[in-house]
Amino acid sequence: MENRLKFDFNNMLSQYVGEEGFTPDDLVNLDTLAGKASKSVKESRGKGMMGWTELTSSNTSEIADIIVTANKIKNKFDAFVVLGIGGSALGPMALFQALCHLRHNELPATLRNNVPKFYVEDNVDPERMQSLLDILDLDKTVFNVITKSGSTSETMSQFLIINDILKAKYGSKAAEHMIATTDSKAGNLIKIAQDEGLKTFVIPAGVGGRFSVLSPVGLLPAAVLGIDIKAFLDGAKTMSTKCLLSDSIFNNPALASATLQYASMNRCKNISVMMPYADSLKLMADWYCQLWGESLGKATNNTGKTVNVGQTPVKALGVTDQHSQIQLYVEGPFDKVVTFIGVESYRATVTISGGYDKYPSVAFLSGHTLNELISAEMLATEYALTRNKRPNNKIVLSTVNANTIGQLIMFFMLETAYAGAMLDIDAFNQPGVEEGKNATYALLGRAGYEAKASEINAWPAKDPKYII
Amino acid sequence: MENRLKFDFNNMLSQYVGEEGFTPDDLVNLDTLAGKASKSVKESRGKGMMGWTELTSSNTSEIADIIVTANKIKNKFDAFVVLGIGGSALGPMALFQALCHLRHNELPATLRNNVPKFYVEDNVDPERMQSLLDILDLDKTVFNVITKSGSTSETMSQFLIINDILKAKYGSKAAEHMIATTDSKAGNLIKIAQDEGLKTFVIPAGVGGRFSVLSPVGLLPAAVLGIDIKAFLDGAKTMSTKCLLSDSIFNNPALASATLQYASMNRCKNISVMMPYADSLKLMADWYCQLWGESLGKATNNTGKTVNVGQTPVKALGVTDQHSQIQLYVEGPFDKVVTFIGVESYRATVTISGGYDKYPSVAFLSGHTLNELISAEMLATEYALTRNKRPNNKIVLSTVNANTIGQLIMFFMLETAYAGAMLDIDAFNQPGVEEGKNATYALLGRAGYEAKASEINAWPAKDPKYII
Repeated sequence: MENRLKFDFNNMLSQYVGEEGFTPDDLVNLDTLAGKASKSVKESRGKGMMGWTELTSSNTSEIADIIVTANKIKNKFDAFVVLGIGGSALGPMALFQALCHLRHNELPATLRNNVPKFYVEDNVDPERMQSLLDILDLDKTVFNVITKSGSTSETMSQFLIINDILKAKYGSKAAEHMIATTDSKAGNLIKIAQDEGLKTFVIPAGVGGRFSVLSPVGLLPAAVLGIDIKAFLDGAKTMSTKCLLSDSIFNNPALASATLQYASMNRCKNISVMMPYADSLKLMADWYCQLWGESLGKATNNTGKTVNVGQTPVKALGVTDQHSQIQLYVEGPFDKVVTFIGVESYRATVTISGGYDKYPSVAFLSGHTLNELISAEMLATEYALTRNKRPNNKIVLSTVNANTIGQLIMFFMLETAYAGAMLDIDAFNQPGVEEGKNATYALLGRAGYEAKASEINAWPAKDPKYII
Repeated sequence: MENRLKFDFNNMLSQYVGEEGFTPDDLVNLDTLAGKASKSVKESRGKGMMGWTELTSSNTSEIADIIVTANKIKNKFDAFVVLGIGGSALGPMALFQALCHLRHNELPATLRNNVPKFYVEDNVDPERMQSLLDILDLDKTVFNVITKSGSTSETMSQFLIINDILKAKYGSKAAEHMIATTDSKAGNLIKIAQDEGLKTFVIPAGVGGRFSVLSPVGLLPAAVLGIDIKAFLDGAKTMSTKCLLSDSIFNNPALASATLQYASMNRCKNISVMMPYADSLKLMADWYCQLWGESLGKATNNTGKTVNVGQTPVKALGVTDQHSQIQLYVEGPFDKVVTFIGVESYRATVTISGGYDKYPSVAFLSGHTLNELISAEMLATEYALTRNKRPNNKIVLSTVNANTIGQLIMFFMLETAYAGAMLDIDAFNQPGVEEGKNATYALLGRAGYEAKASEINAWPAKDPKYII
């Protein structure tokens, strides 16, 4: 199957990167550990917060509803705005960047095939919100408010602002401009949506925000954008099935990657660099950073022991960041694993023109394509890292399409689950964000958070000597 | 002076973050080391590759030329496209994001005050290049090719492609659509520019790419964008002067930050997170990542000893990445220093509407502004990190304007120079990128790189067993 994602971990081995790599014996030992993690994840599939493994079926009534709704939106609106943050934003953004024209919003409507312009509002910066209001034609805009919990302060604030504007302008017809994607019961968004008669889509209970891109969180925006969501789900299913078939790192790519990262963490490689060589995959790296960081960054393990584990994900873009970060990666501390994402066939070909034969150091580029240049640069960077004993591996997509992106997403989600099992931590919670949330509530004077407010007030004041 | 940037390092101290922080005695000891670094940097100002410290004067004939040229461009063109990569791209992008409307390119021309749309092409992905050609109206577009060396493959490839299109379309008038910013002698771009009669601006010899934003690299795009470049340079001068006045971390903010990062590196905090709480500063973090990563990531020190030093810069955006990375920062390994960039006064105010009093967990937001929310969230995150013994410091801008951005840029550049002095490395070179460059040349068959090609061919082939 040519469309199949490939995972290449040669450059994690000692034969390429010396003592920084793993020997064949190391791999055999790691495979035992990996086998246990694989079986544990397999048993958990579909249970608890692993509901996302079961979201790859494309023949459901919900998928049909998403497609019908998307078509209605396309016929009626010229802008689709997601109000969401974290997983509710990163999934839709990654799909948009990967599978639409790279300047989609700047294309004339005819060249967009009447696909709406697309915006994802994942911050509460007032300048950002004002700038959005400055450019939207509300008559032609529909909003999709997305929050799993139904109570995310940032998203609900955006909802309050936008909904107020819509009601003032459209009265009882305001609901036509708002769609809610949320839990079927938890939080207030579902209640408000029912009060207001909003069209709603459900995020299943067993699907956390950062694992939600196969749910309506990702699928509705994707369908509106004209992305083939069935091919996307098929791709996810292909990877899911492949990983289900083997508990060995020699056959299960997500397991191999998880195991090598886990073993690297144990060797003090506390940084995982995700470096796609394609602008279309730039935001896929952002999506990965949330998945990997928030899932694995944990203070305690499953037995309650303090462990403070987690690898820091770093996003880089090839070739761009060769001129920013590669100096550090090649010469700095031996604290990283770099993962390249390569593309065999880009969706455009651009030839480099000639005309400057008298300058050989420029002229050698002529006649090559940008495709050859970017591919050569990836290989060259891989080579430079490897020669300098910097472990790296590579994910290769035949091309960027809905199917390969589905595979890639499932690869990363399963990799994360496997790594969580090896670290013996809960990869699906985020207890560490509570402190900040509660402090925000206290600072804004929310009822019930008076004790936290007192605690903050009792915190030692800053010394002006250290503010210069 | 209210406009003055403030650096707050309280939360680096042990009284706030316990054993992860520094005691007052530690600070006194560090101040001795800092004093030496400060004096060394002071002596180097304006010399060698530290020419950038002397670029803060706004009354030069070059500045006048930039302003005249920018005005001509504004009158004649509706799109300004930078062809550049690394420092030639990151500086212009950071200024654009910080100081223009956040949706500048989507505003109608009248609301843009006839400032051209702005694009920075810092990759060679063929899909990206094609997408740019799909949307540009070449008649109304001017390009600014920027490369210090005059031989950067990526930028020269873009130049060859665009120049060929312009010549085919405009013949002898093609030169009106292209401006070159490069070294006055090095490389081929200056020769080609002279052959073709292009308008040119010079990057001074002592100013490397990542330190070039105060040169025409940053100033011409900024002036075209309507940014007050004199205020920008004044801000840089303000910070430069302030840091010149003191060799102590208790008075010199860039020195304080450098010293605390240096001491943190020595305590295995190998990650520096830059986290602005403003969308306008998002790309300032990208610019910082190149500056910090490429300057300090070095294999050998000034005495030739192998050191493999460097802190990995990570960009995060508040509040957005609270829903992505904060879980890791609060609970994961004690391997980071987080630097917040706060803004006291945003350039817009948006009030959160009401109407849902029966849902108190939503209603408490009503009546607050987004300004209050984002500020409360930054304080809350600072508090959460500090309570969990995670050292953090904070840069505060009164507001985002040309002057404060000038201060911020000079703060980071001086901080980098100080940190380089403490690490005893050359902060101004990038030897580690040569390997990859040469391998690229070899892979593309450039004459003179046959030996490198043979070397690559002799490299052990990949084992298909490890490609799954």
